[in-house]
Amino acid sequence: MALEQELRRAIEEGADGRLKELIQEPHPADLARVFPSLKLAQQVKILRLMDPERAAQVLVELGREQVPPLVEGLGPLRIADILATLPTDDAVDLLGDLPREQKDRLLGLMAAADAKEVRELLEYPQDTAGGIMTTEFVAISERLTAEEAIRVLRETAPDAETVYYVYVVNERGQLVGVLSLRELILAAPGMLVGDIMRRRVISVNVMADQEEVARVVAKYDLLAVPVVDDNQELLGIVTVDDVLDVIKEEAAEDFLRISAIDVRGDDVTAPPWRRAMHRLPWLVAFLLGEMMAATVIKGFAGTLEAATVLAFFITAIAGGAGNAGTQSLAVVVRGLATGELNAREILRVVWRETRVGLLVGLGSGLTLAFVALVWQGWPLLGLVVGGALAASILVATMLGSMIPVVMARLGFDPALASGPFITTLTDVASMLVYFSLATLTILHLR
Amino acid sequence: MALEQELRRAIEEGADGRLKELIQEPHPADLARVFPSLKLAQQVKILRLMDPERAAQVLVELGREQVPPLVEGLGPLRIADILATLPTDDAVDLLGDLPREQKDRLLGLMAAADAKEVRELLEYPQDTAGGIMTTEFVAISERLTAEEAIRVLRETAPDAETVYYVYVVNERGQLVGVLSLRELILAAPGMLVGDIMRRRVISVNVMADQEEVARVVAKYDLLAVPVVDDNQELLGIVTVDDVLDVIKEEAAEDFLRISAIDVRGDDVTAPPWRRAMHRLPWLVAFLLGEMMAATVIKGFAGTLEAATVLAFFITAIAGGAGNAGTQSLAVVVRGLATGELNAREILRVVWRETRVGLLVGLGSGLTLAFVALVWQGWPLLGLVVGGALAASILVATMLGSMIPVVMARLGFDPALASGPFITTLTDVASMLVYFSLATLTILHLR
Repeated sequence: MALEQELRRAIEEGADGRLKELIQEPHPADLARVFPSLKLAQQVKILRLMDPERAAQVLVELGREQVPPLVEGLGPLRIADILATLPTDDAVDLLGDLPREQKDRLLGLMAAADAKEVRELLEYPQDTAGGIMTTEFVAISERLTAEEAIRVLRETAPDAETVYYVYVVNERGQLVGVLSLRELILAAPGMLVGDIMRRRVISVNVMADQEEVARVVAKYDLLAVPVVDDNQELLGIVTVDDVLDVIKEEAAEDFLRISAIDVRGDDVTAPPWRRAMHRLPWLVAFLLGEMMAATVIKGFAGTLEAATVLAFFITAIAGGAGNAGTQSLAVVVRGLATGELNAREILRVVWRETRVGLLVGLGSGLTLAFVALVWQGWPLLGLVVGGALAASILVATMLGSMIPVVMARLGFDPALASGPFITTLTDVASMLVYFSLATLTILHLR
Repeated sequence: MALEQELRRAIEEGADGRLKELIQEPHPADLARVFPSLKLAQQVKILRLMDPERAAQVLVELGREQVPPLVEGLGPLRIADILATLPTDDAVDLLGDLPREQKDRLLGLMAAADAKEVRELLEYPQDTAGGIMTTEFVAISERLTAEEAIRVLRETAPDAETVYYVYVVNERGQLVGVLSLRELILAAPGMLVGDIMRRRVISVNVMADQEEVARVVAKYDLLAVPVVDDNQELLGIVTVDDVLDVIKEEAAEDFLRISAIDVRGDDVTAPPWRRAMHRLPWLVAFLLGEMMAATVIKGFAGTLEAATVLAFFITAIAGGAGNAGTQSLAVVVRGLATGELNAREILRVVWRETRVGLLVGLGSGLTLAFVALVWQGWPLLGLVVGGALAASILVATMLGSMIPVVMARLGFDPALASGPFITTLTDVASMLVYFSLATLTILHLR
């Protein structure tokens, strides 16, 4: 906040010297946070006062809607300088979100070799290893000596984003080993790289999903993972900072998706009507699903007329079953994501939740039966609402576990089986159970 | 799967040589995955055949319930060897989850200096910077020359988990700067570390929440962050691999919490009754909340008896409002977690969702009104159910946004305002709206 005010004051007072000082200190990520509250002209002014490398780092941190007007505002010469300082993966991220025409224009401003590399990277889908990798890595031949390798590193390293792992390739460019910088430095100078390297290298295919890449990096505690094509040829690396972003992005996606929210549509910066337009189709679809529950209740209109008291418990039974179903859904979607549950073991997953559903159904059913009995003083009613809730919860946990695991088995994202979807289904099921039970007992025994 | 079968066969055939070969190859994380499907005696046998360092890496990857019996099975001598190979943060993780008596016994087996360090680390709460940091880091004095510093590193580095950053301290042990290994190697040998280091070091306080640590590491793309006390004295570092675990853990926690699931209670390995016991209290609490909705409906029993048709739409209205409320909740909890929404701007956050609620309420209300009109052929009924749904959705989005942001403001985790909690509240509100509206119109106009 303080930074924002100081920046604004310096701009308004035309104190360029002071402004230049102010923007030297903070981390680019901190400056980027302030940007949305500044006017475009002010943003452009700040970026122009920075050296290109720093400006590039700020641009990379900005949201995708913020970049295009800034690119226009900065002008081609300045942008060319900025692009030249970016590692390829960051350049790809920056360009990937721009409108086609602007993207082509910027590619034209880049050095031919860089532009070619970026163009190739842009070909990979954004959510694959190829889409998030950088081509700036360090690879040496297995035939070099340790001493030669260190010299090569000294010469090429300033260009590489990370030198924490040194990858070793054979004469065909295939990944054959890996070394740490430390292992190389501690080795006897005359030893061959091929003899000191570790041969077991964990790598990912260039078309692997970014979630898979993140899983590998997290599982093996890597700082970077090499990316290879089907021929084992080394194409790039994915670094842990990009993996952190992927993990956060995927977690946000699952989190919203399970509440039937589209993460791309519900950007906090989007205007209300656009966010509403992303939610409405889901809500209307669930509403039409609820009309099935309405049809069920209408089917039992006779029972309801004979005992209006049944209507009092509709939300308790539907809500209770919906809550239990949502819980099972969350546990199963999470378990599938972490790999603790296996989509191929559908029956096992459903059975695990069904047993829990039986127990919580019994507990909830007894509670509701008791409350209804005390409240209305009618034992049969207690039996009906309690029994209906217990049975509905059982059905709900089965649906809440079966639907995501079947979706995962069919290759869909299990989180698409959202809580509202499960709730709508359980509403239909619980009304059917409730009014059937009521008709069988109350109507006939009364 | 293949590994599991091979391991089992080798153990059953008593082919120790073959077994020893089999366990040399895979990554410790892969071996740990197989462990739950093996018998305890088989697990112990495998760990005994490994060298202590590898055994330690497998132990670290295991779940917290799996470790205590293995510690017993391996016996004190073997465990002492294993503990000696672990970096302090991993030793703390391993010991932190053990029963008190076993923990003390293991601390007694460690070298005195290590045990002291681990004991100190165990003092910090597990979810703070102190609880996840390691004390094995590289720190050098600002008064060394580059050449001296490299010699110090060569001597101490084998002990340090990561040497990607070299921290610089003054004579009082206070963190004053940072260097990369590469900067040190490329510097002129005679230069003073104090003159080549970068003075702006991002650090975290030892008592900082682990979520805060993760945010810092992710924001600044760090591989490790130094941990200091209130005096700026350097105590340890948190590495990016531990931060990855924190981010995944916190995401899982939020994900389950929003569906009213306790992440510690719903461990996939726990037996069904224990998992049920963790869910039941929540479900019963919501059920008692639903009794308020039941009381509301009972209050309008006269209206309901005059028009049973009103009962048909109860789940549609309650469900529709619950879904919209859950969506707002998810968006707000997510926005607060990422920092895109600010808990101090309660009104702004609620107003953002309220506008969306107005729009989706109108859209959903019109849909339901139309469906009801076509289905029942009664314009007034369409008006009542449509109007009730629109108003309920509006209320639901307000509740779904206000409750988490107020909770965050008061210092609670906003995800504790779970979907089921919001759904229960909106059930009460929507029934009140629905039957009030119906009473005002249908009952009086009929």
